[in-house]
Amino acid sequence: MSLRQLKTISERRKYLEEKLKLKLSATAIFPQGLNDAQYKNCENMIGCTQVPLGIAGPLKITGNYAKGNYYLPLSTTEGALVASVNRGCKAVTLSGGVTAFCLDVGITRGAVFKTGNIKQSVSLQKFLEENISLLKKKASSTSSHLQLIGLKIKIVGKFVFVRFNFDSQEAMGMNMATIAADKLVRIISEKTQNRCLSLAANFDIDKKPSYLNFLEGRGRQVMAEAIITESVVRQVLKTSPQKIDEVAKVKCYLGSIVAGSLGFNAHYANIIAALFISTGQDVAHVAEGSIGITSTEIVDSNLYISVSLPDLPLGTVGGGTLLPSQQESLKILKVTKGVKGEKSRALAEIIAAAVLAGELSLLSALSVGSLSESHQKFARAKIKQG
Amino acid sequence: MSLRQLKTISERRKYLEEKLKLKLSATAIFPQGLNDAQYKNCENMIGCTQVPLGIAGPLKITGNYAKGNYYLPLSTTEGALVASVNRGCKAVTLSGGVTAFCLDVGITRGAVFKTGNIKQSVSLQKFLEENISLLKKKASSTSSHLQLIGLKIKIVGKFVFVRFNFDSQEAMGMNMATIAADKLVRIISEKTQNRCLSLAANFDIDKKPSYLNFLEGRGRQVMAEAIITESVVRQVLKTSPQKIDEVAKVKCYLGSIVAGSLGFNAHYANIIAALFISTGQDVAHVAEGSIGITSTEIVDSNLYISVSLPDLPLGTVGGGTLLPSQQESLKILKVTKGVKGEKSRALAEIIAAAVLAGELSLLSALSVGSLSESHQKFARAKIKQG
Amino acid sequence: MSLRQLKTISERRKYLEEKLKLKLSATAIFPQGLNDAQYKNCENMIGCTQVPLGIAGPLKITGNYAKGNYYLPLSTTEGALVASVNRGCKAVTLSGGVTAFCLDVGITRGAVFKTGNIKQSVSLQKFLEENISLLKKKASSTSSHLQLIGLKIKIVGKFVFVRFNFDSQEAMGMNMATIAADKLVRIISEKTQNRCLSLAANFDIDKKPSYLNFLEGRGRQVMAEAIITESVVRQVLKTSPQKIDEVAKVKCYLGSIVAGSLGFNAHYANIIAALFISTGQDVAHVAEGSIGITSTEIVDSNLYISVSLPDLPLGTVGGGTLLPSQQESLKILKVTKGVKGEKSRALAEIIAAAVLAGELSLLSALSVGSLSESHQKFARAKIKQG
Amino acid sequence: MSLRQLKTISERRKYLEEKLKLKLSATAIFPQGLNDAQYKNCENMIGCTQVPLGIAGPLKITGNYAKGNYYLPLSTTEGALVASVNRGCKAVTLSGGVTAFCLDVGITRGAVFKTGNIKQSVSLQKFLEENISLLKKKASSTSSHLQLIGLKIKIVGKFVFVRFNFDSQEAMGMNMATIAADKLVRIISEKTQNRCLSLAANFDIDKKPSYLNFLEGRGRQVMAEAIITESVVRQVLKTSPQKIDEVAKVKCYLGSIVAGSLGFNAHYANIIAALFISTGQDVAHVAEGSIGITSTEIVDSNLYISVSLPDLPLGTVGGGTLLPSQQESLKILKVTKGVKGEKSRALAEIIAAAVLAGELSLLSALSVGSLSESHQKFARAKIKQG
Repeated sequence: MSLRQLKTISERRKYLEEKLKLKLSATAIFPQGLNDAQYKNCENMIGCTQVPLGIAGPLKITGNYAKGNYYLPLSTTEGALVASVNRGCKAVTLSGGVTAFCLDVGITRGAVFKTGNIKQSVSLQKFLEENISLLKKKASSTSSHLQLIGLKIKIVGKFVFVRFNFDSQEAMGMNMATIAADKLVRIISEKTQNRCLSLAANFDIDKKPSYLNFLEGRGRQVMAEAIITESVVRQVLKTSPQKIDEVAKVKCYLGSIVAGSLGFNAHYANIIAALFISTGQDVAHVAEGSIGITSTEIVDSNLYISVSLPDLPLGTVGGGTLLPSQQESLKILKVTKGVKGEKSRALAEIIAAAVLAGELSLLSALSVGSLSESHQKFARAKIKQG
Repeated sequence: MSLRQLKTISERRKYLEEKLKLKLSATAIFPQGLNDAQYKNCENMIGCTQVPLGIAGPLKITGNYAKGNYYLPLSTTEGALVASVNRGCKAVTLSGGVTAFCLDVGITRGAVFKTGNIKQSVSLQKFLEENISLLKKKASSTSSHLQLIGLKIKIVGKFVFVRFNFDSQEAMGMNMATIAADKLVRIISEKTQNRCLSLAANFDIDKKPSYLNFLEGRGRQVMAEAIITESVVRQVLKTSPQKIDEVAKVKCYLGSIVAGSLGFNAHYANIIAALFISTGQDVAHVAEGSIGITSTEIVDSNLYISVSLPDLPLGTVGGGTLLPSQQESLKILKVTKGVKGEKSRALAEIIAAAVLAGELSLLSALSVGSLSESHQKFARAKIKQG
Repeated sequence: MSLRQLKTISERRKYLEEKLKLKLSATAIFPQGLNDAQYKNCENMIGCTQVPLGIAGPLKITGNYAKGNYYLPLSTTEGALVASVNRGCKAVTLSGGVTAFCLDVGITRGAVFKTGNIKQSVSLQKFLEENISLLKKKASSTSSHLQLIGLKIKIVGKFVFVRFNFDSQEAMGMNMATIAADKLVRIISEKTQNRCLSLAANFDIDKKPSYLNFLEGRGRQVMAEAIITESVVRQVLKTSPQKIDEVAKVKCYLGSIVAGSLGFNAHYANIIAALFISTGQDVAHVAEGSIGITSTEIVDSNLYISVSLPDLPLGTVGGGTLLPSQQESLKILKVTKGVKGEKSRALAEIIAAAVLAGELSLLSALSVGSLSESHQKFARAKIKQG
Repeated sequence: MSLRQLKTISERRKYLEEKLKLKLSATAIFPQGLNDAQYKNCENMIGCTQVPLGIAGPLKITGNYAKGNYYLPLSTTEGALVASVNRGCKAVTLSGGVTAFCLDVGITRGAVFKTGNIKQSVSLQKFLEENISLLKKKASSTSSHLQLIGLKIKIVGKFVFVRFNFDSQEAMGMNMATIAADKLVRIISEKTQNRCLSLAANFDIDKKPSYLNFLEGRGRQVMAEAIITESVVRQVLKTSPQKIDEVAKVKCYLGSIVAGSLGFNAHYANIIAALFISTGQDVAHVAEGSIGITSTEIVDSNLYISVSLPDLPLGTVGGGTLLPSQQESLKILKVTKGVKGEKSRALAEIIAAAVLAGELSLLSALSVGSLSESHQKFARAKIKQG
């Protein structure tokens, strides 16, 4: 008898409790609707982990897809994060809100073929470029929600890396992309007699930070900007535009440079992780989302701030989005029931806007030396235990 | 009346439900013990997000701190992940288990000072090197659980970046490190008359992928290795050692090289994210955990595989570790009630071992072209929606 | 009276000799034809530096542009380099020669514009994409030897980086590209009312190592491969295919990975520097040429080796190519009097082939632990001084 | 009969002339003293390449080792470079000169060992750390001019990379380091029974750009700074401090960030290449020298500028330094006949100061859009040919 032979969540949990002589009573608490996750989202399911959900906002956003005032559902266990983002939302909204742009889209799968020599590698590249229409047609045949947008090819001797770039509409699309790419590599292998060594060859590149995605983008590419008036900076953020600008340049530019980092920002990962958990995204994509650039400048004595997130794979359908509490968070953000990607783009714009609020607040705290203080205030109990 | 003025979780949730004309009934379901999270972990808390928890294993681990057979609690919404890790656990355990080493420790905080010129920058460096004993003493005065281990200094003209490296025992330690570093920079500023521009200047570097952490390590640095016998590779993983080795080299080495990535692996982020959520870690640290190197070779016709994770900030106390379901997952892993870091090191070794199982399984699937197939099997419903 | 007011090479040299109480008699020795360099290549010229020129080869090359047996003129002061490359040439040629492919071309200039906000940045991108024909026409108007191939655009908030990619035929083309790009940015500024902050904004990116050029290529992108028979490996290189393959993987892949390098090779820079000096190239481009990937594998007990050089800006006209000794080296390589880039492509193929010979020889020496020995043999006097 | 069997430079040249039906008359012209280069610097020598030598300066430098006014000997074929550096020298010197600091030293050799498993890798690390005194003693036994300073170790599974760091006094030291490291790895192999796979395993990392050297430094690490008064900026550089500062930040910071570059500067490689050729350095090291950070700021309406060059391997003895014209250039710079590294440090400070002058001039030209113009003026003939 083993876990995999048991049929229900409670049987499996009970099995483990007996095996380990433990009570898993908290893990057992979840809404009825989460039951089906054992078939679609999580094998050997024994219950759930409850991640506290806090609300920041409202945050006024003017995007191409997200428009209005938004409450941000942030799933986190780290004290001070919600409060910090909330302060940023207040400063931004009082200053007229944040503008956000979801620029382009495309989930990728990057396979590798092995040819017999460089000449054959070049021939394969030529074949791919000449048969793009065929590949597009075949890709679309795997799903009505998927389109092949284009290819990026890199040859290293006998190895030909091919990055397929797909529009997956409302879905994050990694699964659809995998299925479509699988079909495409089989066709390519058959027609060119080159072996595909790996369907996923890190030229995607999925769930790892990379310059390729930094430069080319992946999933949704989104930017946001806001002008925070000097009076709001002083009253809400307790600092000055000059101080924020100085910290931003020395931390997000120079500090990241000397650290050899791809994340030229203060803490994108914090906000992205919290929103990815709450909305049922694939949390491993935080590894990609954490790259990007925060830029500030003084404009007429006010603070201009922008964030650029090149690599944000996300969706409003599929994955964990249909799970009960996750669906509720998506509803809080008004990004359910979209078609053709409009709601996913809205979600991307909201995340970029939230990231901007988070950057603003943390940079403000750092500029006046109050980071340590706020952590002590909001997380004292934790610190004592630590 | 606003969210921040409300005092209870249910009041805030009700407020939002009315404001947005929504029912947040799933979000409302959580164990009694999660109530206190509103004071320590999550401001403006309205409930929780339930993330499905599945079990992989048992996985036999021989570490310096983790010893025995472990069941792995994986919080994820992505179908096929638990099944894949589970398959890896089976192959590893049948082959005699995985050996893991938690090599060294240290959470960092990296501040930046601005001096008047390069000469003063060099003087500041000299001051820091000569006063390390004083700094160690002062650091320890901020917490009985914290010790300053050392400094790393980088000068760029007037800017002096100082990376404080702390031993934080059982805690992940970012908060303790912040408080201690705050004290240290105040002392340094006072004694040398150099202004600290930012306590956290991305020379930590926290929650962003970086070569600095890749090279120097951060938090726990951990490695694991296993030899998978040829027969197990064939029977459990349905492939051959040669095929796995070939895919590993072309994907984890060459593929990551051409993508300009810091993650020379198949999918560390997946396993780390799932274990970080279940055990109450700071999930934003997935951005760091995703870097590292997977290496394979054929030894006597069997497969040798190793994983190297240089940058894994984690703890068994503090943060989200005391929350009800998170504490249960820590108990499943037998890493509660540690002293001086022994349980945190055990947790690091378990994660590295789990990562190895995950790498093995995914590389196996890729080597026989079955990735797409397994996704279709385990996540059909999801794919249909996507 | 100062240097700049003096009119001849000897007057300036004499001025300096008197000023510094030195004899510059060696510097004074150069062929008559170098005289004109003071007007075109080197302001305030006082003479020349003589760099020793050695010959390696012949090397049998089968390229699309370079075909036949080539003697390689290597300008270097580093003992053992010519001998090492020569050994590689012998091994390659005895095994049937090296195949080389010059894949594509394009010298770049990357300007940056500053707009008023992200929306304007997106509009500028759209303008550029829609007016590519106009830009091509205007670019061609600056030189009959230049064509605009395409653009690559990257937006970061208000900043729009535009990388113009030019075909410059036989020339390396950086000057032509600068003049053409200057014209284009003026047109763009005028038509869109966006200010160009810098014509050269490191999005070129010129004379610095970068992932952008690693991924996209710059100048000439060239690859070469050869199969070295086992008997040649043993007799000429005194090692085995397996040993070379093992060293190549641990050094060029893993070693470069742990060093955080863009150069996944043994020593491209050595060969490129020597050939760039001898043929009158811009030697600062060694900073770019040093990136690239060397790959090996065992094929039927022989050694397969390939080199990939994505970023090799070079030319057969312009710059230092017309200077007397430099022109002679170009003639040794049979790459003068080309049209439309055919000779520049040939030169790129020769360099890649020479690089392969150099890689092969050094990897062989390392594989049997003879690096130190060969340095002692060829450079004893130098070592004693050092 | 082949090249290698011939005994004199002229015999070899004649052989090649006949073989290729060419006249190599320019190549044949060189000072008598260059003859010996065939034994120490360049095998199969047939003559030399003459690289035009121009003079910029004087440049007033206040370093710890370089003090006074210096004329800079720049070997280049690229029109406008000497003139540009010269303009920078004038602006710097009129403003009171440049301050330079050579901070620390160390040439490296990075070997790799292969152990049987991670435990043995950790043991090897421990052995190395415990036997550092023995290793230092053995290293010094290979040369009276060499000392082992320290080690840096990186473990990846079975692979243990060891970076030996040496003080090589006046020499660049790569050959001495190789010989010493060769001795050390033999001792280590013998005592620990671990095989050294490669003496040079790219953990040095030699002649490739890398984050390791960017962070840790290699050879000489040197910085320089200057304050350029507003009036000098306006009169000599024809621009304003603000404009230079704006271009520096958008090009050297943001531009290099979006290009994924390690060179956060305008054109270090140009100046380093020209001074490396003239002074007989190993020109392939331009690949390393091109990395580093240029930083500017406005101070009291003047321009502050600093350059940071972490990775500058160079020497005043050994290599090409004794060759006739190269020795004359070293004399122009007053860096011959040093002991214990004082002259090499002076040379490093001069190069950093020259680099600063070059950065200043190019950034000035870019800030007013005159780059294209100056290239047209100084290099018209070349451009016509190109």
